[in-house]
Amino acid sequence: MFEIHPALAKDTTLVTLLPLCTVLLMNDARYPWLILVPVRDAMGEIHDLKVEDQRVLLQEIVKTSKIMKSLYTPDKINIGALGNLVPQLHVHVIARYKDDFAWPGPVWGQGDAVPYDAGKLKTLRDQLVDVFEK
Amino acid sequence: MFEIHPALAKDTTLVTLLPLCTVLLMNDARYPWLILVPVRDAMGEIHDLKVEDQRVLLQEIVKTSKIMKSLYTPDKINIGALGNLVPQLHVHVIARYKDDFAWPGPVWGQGDAVPYDAGKLKTLRDQLVDVFEK
Repeated sequence: MFEIHPALAKDTTLVTLLPLCTVLLMNDARYPWLILVPVRDAMGEIHDLKVEDQRVLLQEIVKTSKIMKSLYTPDKINIGALGNLVPQLHVHVIARYKDDFAWPGPVWGQGDAVPYDAGKLKTLRDQLVDVFEK
Repeated sequence: MFEIHPALAKDTTLVTLLPLCTVLLMNDARYPWLILVPVRDAMGEIHDLKVEDQRVLLQEIVKTSKIMKSLYTPDKINIGALGNLVPQLHVHVIARYKDDFAWPGPVWGQGDAVPYDAGKLKTLRDQLVDVFEK
């Protein structure tokens, strides 16, 4: 049975399920940061997915990017499929600002996450659920 | 008329033209590193592309990933569309190894590029041209 890798589950909150991907919200208040995890077993690379799933993944990346652009008006969206630490295929979609912690560098490996306070995390998640599911 | 952004052109060598993207080889001997640049004006984000171009971009990312996997047998492929420094839409496809310079971190912003010697660069490029164009 498919399970989110524990290292992803630990740092994130579930937002919603899209046709292919589980959408997770990273608990790091430094950046609006979502992670898409295709609900498919034993996938490590985008090219491991079936062609139809690749197509849907791209659609879900685009949908997520547009939602983040609209909700957070960032200066740039960063998209990355790295997986050097967590082997389960997952795609980061991150809203970046010219004054954010890691700008202009990438967010990965830059200092420690700054968790949201519980109320803020709930508000952010509820807003994302509304937008993804409407 | 479409032109590759000078900051991308400066650090790369042209490999080939795919239906949507120009393929560039990064002149950094620390990692096999290709960059796909959609030949479309004034695009900053993947979601700015027309839906048909998005579809082709994904196909070209997958083609490039498979070629790198086959030629270089890396431990992981890293794919990233960041654009924090260079606003022209471009997608990195990088072959990563567990003993490479930046592992397990991302390659961006990690030290200075180590240029190939001219002979090695030509050999690598010729091999890539052969594989992309066959």
